[in-house]
Amino acid sequence: MAKPVRSARETFRVPRGEVDLAAIDPAGRPVGPKNKAAAAAAMAELNERIDSRQQALYASAVAGHGPRAVLLVLQGMDTSGKGGVIEHVGGLIDPLGLHIASFKRPTPEELAHDFLWRIRKQVPGPGVVGLFDRSHYEDVLVVRVDGLVPEAEWRSRYERINAFEAELDEQGVVVVKCMLHISPQAQAERLLARLEDPTKHWKYNPGDLDVRAKWTDYQAAYADALRHCDTDAAPWYVVPADRKWYRNWVVATLLAETLEAIDPRFPPADFDVEAEKARVRAAV
Amino acid sequence: MAKPVRSARETFRVPRGEVDLAAIDPAGRPVGPKNKAAAAAAMAELNERIDSRQQALYASAVAGHGPRAVLLVLQGMDTSGKGGVIEHVGGLIDPLGLHIASFKRPTPEELAHDFLWRIRKQVPGPGVVGLFDRSHYEDVLVVRVDGLVPEAEWRSRYERINAFEAELDEQGVVVVKCMLHISPQAQAERLLARLEDPTKHWKYNPGDLDVRAKWTDYQAAYADALRHCDTDAAPWYVVPADRKWYRNWVVATLLAETLEAIDPRFPPADFDVEAEKARVRAAV
Repeated sequence: MAKPVRSARETFRVPRGEVDLAAIDPAGRPVGPKNKAAAAAAMAELNERIDSRQQALYASAVAGHGPRAVLLVLQGMDTSGKGGVIEHVGGLIDPLGLHIASFKRPTPEELAHDFLWRIRKQVPGPGVVGLFDRSHYEDVLVVRVDGLVPEAEWRSRYERINAFEAELDEQGVVVVKCMLHISPQAQAERLLARLEDPTKHWKYNPGDLDVRAKWTDYQAAYADALRHCDTDAAPWYVVPADRKWYRNWVVATLLAETLEAIDPRFPPADFDVEAEKARVRAAV
Repeated sequence: MAKPVRSARETFRVPRGEVDLAAIDPAGRPVGPKNKAAAAAAMAELNERIDSRQQALYASAVAGHGPRAVLLVLQGMDTSGKGGVIEHVGGLIDPLGLHIASFKRPTPEELAHDFLWRIRKQVPGPGVVGLFDRSHYEDVLVVRVDGLVPEAEWRSRYERINAFEAELDEQGVVVVKCMLHISPQAQAERLLARLEDPTKHWKYNPGDLDVRAKWTDYQAAYADALRHCDTDAAPWYVVPADRKWYRNWVVATLLAETLEAIDPRFPPADFDVEAEKARVRAAV
């Protein structure tokens, strides 16, 4: 047997205390596949690990055995791959048991409510795996960097987010938060690739460069959000995202480990199996 | 070149006039792959056909170029494969552009509203492919068979459904309705398979046999629904569903042909591409 491998949940958990994102290599591959081909094989295996347990999670919720759910929160700079993770990791999940929510610039109605109002409406129901494409963390990221609310307001949100996520945990919603960690060099390459490909122009927005110009401010805002809101009830993971195949493998592995920890079981029959077989054979 | 093949939309469209479901073979394979291996190869090809056009549909909606969407309605007796189609055909679609809605027994709140109330809330937004696992057709199927409302009421619904679907068509929502047509023999085999497999017991409900006992009534209710609600704005297709691989191929092909008919285009850049490349290269 090979020596025990550190789990993804241990490897990628944000370090405690002050978070120095510059010290985490966006192109790092501390565990797992070393190249794209190995990652493809690993993804096929993850597909099996995720599929069986997600079916059991869904089945146990349908049968009323515990209202457990998973909420995977995806955050990251433009081009870090939130959409790619939804396509490639979300694609491993039976669509019936998957709920995607994308949080774009808030509408006037959303702004008129507490910042968690639109988030609460999208919490996955029992048995469902939810994927958040951006989230309530925007309210301590862009909102802070662009000074959209006073500092006292956004600072107070760390604690309110922790209270909200603790509430989810108590309800049985297992929260997994992934920061897709990309380098500014990789972002430049991806923006140029979008500009080279006419079928990708719709993904490009000149305003993205204004955000890019505030890179250092965003990294500082992320570092604080990760530091203040990494809890055992709702941990933060930093996912090296400069290589797309590695990023997808890490998030899929975090999901597989999370489902394995929940260990959902298919509910037992609440009827007499043999009697029902006889009924089926007799009918029609 | 081979002779032109009839499209799935022509082949599986419900015949006009009185519908005789008994005359349509649930194990038929009038076009397309002749075995499971050929179907697997065909599905890989369909994946490409669907993927590029679904991305373009989504992109054009994001860019505000026309609010088009697709709504695939799945109806069929228990075990006919609604869930299987969602897994295998829904799985071909990027989850970001997919919306699934399952219509189960109505809640008291839903019953207190018009039968289309809960349906309208789930109509796919611009650029999205919606999949309905059951639908408003339950309101002329189980509701009719079990006499849940007076005959005059359910009879009036055909026209209201047609008006609703014409409205969707005008809004740009392309409606594709599939009846998954299974034989009672195939249903018995699948129910027994569920009973043999403890990980499938949760899908079995002894009440399913009460529905099965009303097979003839249900076929009559389906025949009338298909006859009265097959319109050019929202056609009905009868999908042979005794073979799972053939059923999935037919629905995927109907979806591919629908997307090809819509022919969505990636929106052109609304910015100066070369100038933006220079900005990206200059920044950071």
